[in-house]
Amino acid sequence: MKSSEITELQKAEVLIEALPYIQRFNRKIIVVKYGGSAMVDEQLKHQVIQDVVLLKLVGFKPIIVHGGGKEISRWVNKVGMEPHFVNGLRVTDEPTMEIAEMVLNKVNKSLVQLVNELGVKAVGISGKDGMLLRCEKKLSKGEDIGFVGEITKVDPQIIYDLLEKDFLPIICPIGSDEYYASYNINADDAACAIARAVNAEKLAFLTDVEGVYRDFEDKSSLISEMTVKEAQDFVNSGSLGGGMLPKLQNCIDAIENGVSRVHILDGRIAHCLLLEIFTNRGIGTAIYKDGDARYFHEEAK
Amino acid sequence: MKSSEITELQKAEVLIEALPYIQRFNRKIIVVKYGGSAMVDEQLKHQVIQDVVLLKLVGFKPIIVHGGGKEISRWVNKVGMEPHFVNGLRVTDEPTMEIAEMVLNKVNKSLVQLVNELGVKAVGISGKDGMLLRCEKKLSKGEDIGFVGEITKVDPQIIYDLLEKDFLPIICPIGSDEYYASYNINADDAACAIARAVNAEKLAFLTDVEGVYRDFEDKSSLISEMTVKEAQDFVNSGSLGGGMLPKLQNCIDAIENGVSRVHILDGRIAHCLLLEIFTNRGIGTAIYKDGDARYFHEEAK
Amino acid sequence: MKSSEITELQKAEVLIEALPYIQRFNRKIIVVKYGGSAMVDEQLKHQVIQDVVLLKLVGFKPIIVHGGGKEISRWVNKVGMEPHFVNGLRVTDEPTMEIAEMVLNKVNKSLVQLVNELGVKAVGISGKDGMLLRCEKKLSKGEDIGFVGEITKVDPQIIYDLLEKDFLPIICPIGSDEYYASYNINADDAACAIARAVNAEKLAFLTDVEGVYRDFEDKSSLISEMTVKEAQDFVNSGSLGGGMLPKLQNCIDAIENGVSRVHILDGRIAHCLLLEIFTNRGIGTAIYKDGDARYFHEEAK
Amino acid sequence: MKSSEITELQKAEVLIEALPYIQRFNRKIIVVKYGGSAMVDEQLKHQVIQDVVLLKLVGFKPIIVHGGGKEISRWVNKVGMEPHFVNGLRVTDEPTMEIAEMVLNKVNKSLVQLVNELGVKAVGISGKDGMLLRCEKKLSKGEDIGFVGEITKVDPQIIYDLLEKDFLPIICPIGSDEYYASYNINADDAACAIARAVNAEKLAFLTDVEGVYRDFEDKSSLISEMTVKEAQDFVNSGSLGGGMLPKLQNCIDAIENGVSRVHILDGRIAHCLLLEIFTNRGIGTAIYKDGDARYFHEEAK
Amino acid sequence: MKSSEITELQKAEVLIEALPYIQRFNRKIIVVKYGGSAMVDEQLKHQVIQDVVLLKLVGFKPIIVHGGGKEISRWVNKVGMEPHFVNGLRVTDEPTMEIAEMVLNKVNKSLVQLVNELGVKAVGISGKDGMLLRCEKKLSKGEDIGFVGEITKVDPQIIYDLLEKDFLPIICPIGSDEYYASYNINADDAACAIARAVNAEKLAFLTDVEGVYRDFEDKSSLISEMTVKEAQDFVNSGSLGGGMLPKLQNCIDAIENGVSRVHILDGRIAHCLLLEIFTNRGIGTAIYKDGDARYFHEEAK
Amino acid sequence: MKSSEITELQKAEVLIEALPYIQRFNRKIIVVKYGGSAMVDEQLKHQVIQDVVLLKLVGFKPIIVHGGGKEISRWVNKVGMEPHFVNGLRVTDEPTMEIAEMVLNKVNKSLVQLVNELGVKAVGISGKDGMLLRCEKKLSKGEDIGFVGEITKVDPQIIYDLLEKDFLPIICPIGSDEYYASYNINADDAACAIARAVNAEKLAFLTDVEGVYRDFEDKSSLISEMTVKEAQDFVNSGSLGGGMLPKLQNCIDAIENGVSRVHILDGRIAHCLLLEIFTNRGIGTAIYKDGDARYFHEEAK
Repeated sequence: MKSSEITELQKAEVLIEALPYIQRFNRKIIVVKYGGSAMVDEQLKHQVIQDVVLLKLVGFKPIIVHGGGKEISRWVNKVGMEPHFVNGLRVTDEPTMEIAEMVLNKVNKSLVQLVNELGVKAVGISGKDGMLLRCEKKLSKGEDIGFVGEITKVDPQIIYDLLEKDFLPIICPIGSDEYYASYNINADDAACAIARAVNAEKLAFLTDVEGVYRDFEDKSSLISEMTVKEAQDFVNSGSLGGGMLPKLQNCIDAIENGVSRVHILDGRIAHCLLLEIFTNRGIGTAIYKDGDARYFHEEAK
Repeated sequence: MKSSEITELQKAEVLIEALPYIQRFNRKIIVVKYGGSAMVDEQLKHQVIQDVVLLKLVGFKPIIVHGGGKEISRWVNKVGMEPHFVNGLRVTDEPTMEIAEMVLNKVNKSLVQLVNELGVKAVGISGKDGMLLRCEKKLSKGEDIGFVGEITKVDPQIIYDLLEKDFLPIICPIGSDEYYASYNINADDAACAIARAVNAEKLAFLTDVEGVYRDFEDKSSLISEMTVKEAQDFVNSGSLGGGMLPKLQNCIDAIENGVSRVHILDGRIAHCLLLEIFTNRGIGTAIYKDGDARYFHEEAK
Repeated sequence: MKSSEITELQKAEVLIEALPYIQRFNRKIIVVKYGGSAMVDEQLKHQVIQDVVLLKLVGFKPIIVHGGGKEISRWVNKVGMEPHFVNGLRVTDEPTMEIAEMVLNKVNKSLVQLVNELGVKAVGISGKDGMLLRCEKKLSKGEDIGFVGEITKVDPQIIYDLLEKDFLPIICPIGSDEYYASYNINADDAACAIARAVNAEKLAFLTDVEGVYRDFEDKSSLISEMTVKEAQDFVNSGSLGGGMLPKLQNCIDAIENGVSRVHILDGRIAHCLLLEIFTNRGIGTAIYKDGDARYFHEEAK
Repeated sequence: MKSSEITELQKAEVLIEALPYIQRFNRKIIVVKYGGSAMVDEQLKHQVIQDVVLLKLVGFKPIIVHGGGKEISRWVNKVGMEPHFVNGLRVTDEPTMEIAEMVLNKVNKSLVQLVNELGVKAVGISGKDGMLLRCEKKLSKGEDIGFVGEITKVDPQIIYDLLEKDFLPIICPIGSDEYYASYNINADDAACAIARAVNAEKLAFLTDVEGVYRDFEDKSSLISEMTVKEAQDFVNSGSLGGGMLPKLQNCIDAIENGVSRVHILDGRIAHCLLLEIFTNRGIGTAIYKDGDARYFHEEAK
Repeated sequence: MKSSEITELQKAEVLIEALPYIQRFNRKIIVVKYGGSAMVDEQLKHQVIQDVVLLKLVGFKPIIVHGGGKEISRWVNKVGMEPHFVNGLRVTDEPTMEIAEMVLNKVNKSLVQLVNELGVKAVGISGKDGMLLRCEKKLSKGEDIGFVGEITKVDPQIIYDLLEKDFLPIICPIGSDEYYASYNINADDAACAIARAVNAEKLAFLTDVEGVYRDFEDKSSLISEMTVKEAQDFVNSGSLGGGMLPKLQNCIDAIENGVSRVHILDGRIAHCLLLEIFTNRGIGTAIYKDGDARYFHEEAK
Repeated sequence: MKSSEITELQKAEVLIEALPYIQRFNRKIIVVKYGGSAMVDEQLKHQVIQDVVLLKLVGFKPIIVHGGGKEISRWVNKVGMEPHFVNGLRVTDEPTMEIAEMVLNKVNKSLVQLVNELGVKAVGISGKDGMLLRCEKKLSKGEDIGFVGEITKVDPQIIYDLLEKDFLPIICPIGSDEYYASYNINADDAACAIARAVNAEKLAFLTDVEGVYRDFEDKSSLISEMTVKEAQDFVNSGSLGGGMLPKLQNCIDAIENGVSRVHILDGRIAHCLLLEIFTNRGIGTAIYKDGDARYFHEEAK
């Protein structure tokens, strides 16, 4: 059935269905880690931005934190350099760092532009602005891989100021160390650290998977929800691998530090943010505090 | 097709479609004159309240002004009095006025309750509170019909204060004269005077007709829109009669005094407020300033 | 001696005598439970309102909480219903509740009007407005007597907002339960709960007795003051009966929860509020914290 | 009849009588030029301060401007100098100016103290503080009489700041010229200039006469009120002499520049300020705008 | 003589000398167009940033607007593209625009970093953020040279917000047109448009020349100051050429639109900003309003 | 070398050198006890005021507390009285107190004037204003020496209010006891008590000695810094005498109650305040918390 076949009355009823969700998150901060396919596919990109703008307009306080890995690689190649990885992490020498910063800021401003187009004023900043993100060198299994940063301190003042002035903050994960050298920071880490620092109500990761699988090989084993304890047990069990391990660790960390609920969403699904927030069905994997009700409506009772 | 058959994605798209309308009316005041069938039918009543609460939550500033004519008659009878009308206007002697005030305040608080139920805090006031509405005796063709008031002054401070504190104001049309006697005021007049006083963006009358007909006998002659000049010409033509004449005069008066757009809506249609505000199709009759574009999307261009 | 015989100089001296009392209660909240004869006799009514308005104008923050029992009975009869009492409490079925709410709101707005007349802006609300009073069903010795409510929660935000905006709040004791049904609440209970919630400096009950008697039969046994401990002992002694028992229990409860001083005043005495507040003689019975000085001037030393 | 013979009820009635006056001047600025006998007699002094403190506490914004002529002369003599006058004006050479400033500041702080004693926080400033009063040398009939200043500019910011912070400002009339030399300013001139600068509602001069006489020799010719036009005509008639001429000219100047009403009061009468403000009888001479009603109650109609 | 030979007392005296200049510009906005050698030479760069940080700390409100022309060319080459110029303007096709935006944002964040290092929090934005700069395509003598923008609208809200929150705004001249395409804007134009929009007190261009020469060949013909009329006459005379012509036109435009004084400074001189602002000697060429005094101290008289 | 021989560039570098100090004390309160030669010598006086004004303009919040001992003695003699001392303390009978208050207020306003001249608005208050300083009689070794006060309470509200409104407060040490009698307070004590009450960052005493000597006879034994523990040990050792003992005790007291650093400066040195604050060399004796680094730059590391 096409959207155009929906009657006006049905549309009104859809809006009314959104009422309790709008109430629930009114004036709450929602950090969206934006990355993966949703940043590459133009239509998905447009839909994510629409979702975030809607959240802003109905009274939420969304913040976008984004990466730009593929685009960085593309530009490293473009200037004739060879991307170099150690233990799956990009070795970030000074020329690479320079390109990384240029590319991330370019991506940042293009997102600002997309938000502006929808009539909401965005401000794009990096972790340098207002000294938002301080970091130190992160080693990879003891090995120096260059200007890859581990966050040591978040000063969220610039975020609060932009939110107070009704701007939508869009943040790229560049930080600086105590000598004011620039570092590339993993966007998941940055999103998690920022969500913690601003006591976000929600932290949503847009990824290229459906969510967390109990058994990655078995696509039917998708876990739709876990308490933080279950998540920690799962991590400890050692059966989780690849990129999901640090992501899940980030989720656990966020919840243990004040974020109410973390979502690992499938960014390849159109309007996945709205689907997660405005429906009770839920998509992807939700991690929440031990003792919380599984569903919002259950909580409400 | 039932609403439940709509897919989640379609729901998300419906929300996204609402984006430009939400932006357009963000922080704007919308006065809703609530009356007629929409106050009697329990389901319609619930839907109107849902609509207003949604408007509040997505950033509008709705104000409800309501009447209660039928309920007043019911109570006048209940205490063994005989309702008495002159030129179609209720003769309001002191005992009738006492009942009218009791009934209107009861209705007022029941609306407060309904809004509260949906999680938005309402405050119900009459025109006496904060000395909102001052009036003088209104004669009916020169005849004294008792405590029927004509508004002489609106002090909107209490409304601004309640809006600033994020309450939804619900107002019943009782006012007082210079000797502090109580008067019953026509709810349409009160809605119009309040909309003018607060420079409302929109004033919407919920009525029991489809809108204004060019020829009342010919239901196909519904006028979907008029400029204020066209409306005045129509009034002057003398072909308009019954209750619509003063209502349309009120509409003209509102627009000439700063309200941007006035709507005569069919309150018997479910979610008529949302349909009017969140779709471009429009329902009922819209009256707007000379020179304004006919549709919102045209304006936007 | 008539007031007109007082010289201008003497009047000036009376004003000067009020200085320390004005200072003492500057910007303090004073909750007045208004009821009894003072609500029936027109002259007394006018004097109470004058007193409260004066308190407002010289810098206090008075709040009126009122009942309306006799007027409710009158209207119950008027519509041909039979008032019904169990254990001295009105059985409040749904039709009775409907009338009670109508009458209380009518009384409420008439008080608003009287305050307005004296040039101070009042706002009349019930416990439904801003969800001020939440309650549950109160049983009478285990018996269901209908929509009689026991307060479970006070949300004083609407009161603070009205006070901040310089309005005088007038409150009638209607509340709602978790299913948003309406309940009639004892006005004494409401006044006490509100005084606690806003940390009132003073709570004054206008009653139809001189105060608390040690021996109700012996009018010379009027107790002019008690510490809260003495009051509790008196309650425990079992020698107190009738309507005074719950009232005194309310007084004790208020003081134990932050109200500084509670007064049981004789509302039949003209200007009893001013007499209590602006003179050191005191009238009626005062209950205060253990350890407080008996008189204000003693305290000041 | 002694004040103590007045009953408590009569006292309450006196307070109630003050209601309309308290309302009328709520948050209005009242400048009191304090001088003459009322500064010398200890009891009168105490009464004036009581009056001003009461005005403050019931919501007015009083400002005291005071002189100190006799005390200056006393100290000039004390240090063995000879006061010297030209055309009735003190010749103020540098040593005299030094003493004048010392004495005026001493008087200033003693008034601060008296206000403090009554529980209201006062702040004593001179025209130097916050650069309140700028002046230039004033000649006496073309003759240089030293550091006697004519006000050229008032910067009322410090007054507004002190009022906003709820202090009672007490001001002594010392100013400085463009080279930052100190000047003694006539206190009447200072009070008038300050009342104009802050748009005072009222300016009251405490003097040692009953008011303005039509014929100074005939004490029965006291003028109880004049419009500003009548006052100007009287000045122009040339029949007014002595110290009253510049005072009346100051009054006219004040009213023509925004002050609503000016009073020449007899400071020898106990509580003359309260008598003027809280009674309708009026004392002394009132000067008001042409077209204003003679009495407050007439105005109110 | 080395700085270290200056005595401590002399240092204190130098600070005291700065007093009147600090007062004069307290809380005033100063726009610094940063470019040329001062952006290339590391020491000069550091000194400019020190100057701006000092201005911030002593109470001014500096804003940096910067270009990055040479660095853009370097990167265009780096990715193997050929810079292309028409009439001296860079032809900015889409790939060039992409690089320009990347480079300008990189430069922007490196300046943010330098300011941060000195303990002042900077925020780097482009003209896209908060929709600061809107533009349209600029033709070069009728020829389309790609994404080179001409400013059509400045929305300074984001600047005011950042200044209010005590951040130092650093701005790179990227704007967007009505279709939200990105444009490169001449940094001089951007600085001028921003200075106008925020009513800057001062606009200072850091250039690679000493200032404006009456005869470019004759280095002794440096003009130290011009009124805006003299500047316009000079422009009209046709004797001015090269890059100085549009710059001077910008200066005239700025002054005619509310900027008080514009300076063309030699950015190759260490601390040229401080020299200009904190000394009366002046460096470079100053353009000011007709009728203004030539020197600050003259003005002060 | 004369100041005029310093090049403009050197001046700019001096300003740049001040950067870290300006940052460090930004918005911090600095209490300056002003007295001794620096109050007598006209040039020194001017330099102290310049220093304080500079501190104000670059963002510090200086407060001046001053005495006036020599000038009091001069005036006591002038009116033919004999100064009388017991144990080195002035016996302050009522006439002496009257003169002391006059003189201190005169001095106070002359300092206000000097600050005004430099373009910063000062407000001069005594400890009576806003009831800043409350005290009780101080005995000298058990002997009553008249109106010499010991501070019992500081109410710093008036200081905070003046600072908030951007005034520079200048305070003379007159206080009042519980009966509102006036007392002369030692200016060192007042400065110390005020610094404590406002949590000053720094308290600087301008004295007529170089600082604290380990052996007063040996001018080479000047102590440039002490921790508070070292200072206490030194006091306990009994080797300290004269006026320095109570001063050092005041310093210790201040640091133990929240002041970060106290300085005993040689007020005879030009610009001693700037030298202390804007250079790392330090002058006079600094007392600081145990554990603090000796120098600011060490701290910064």
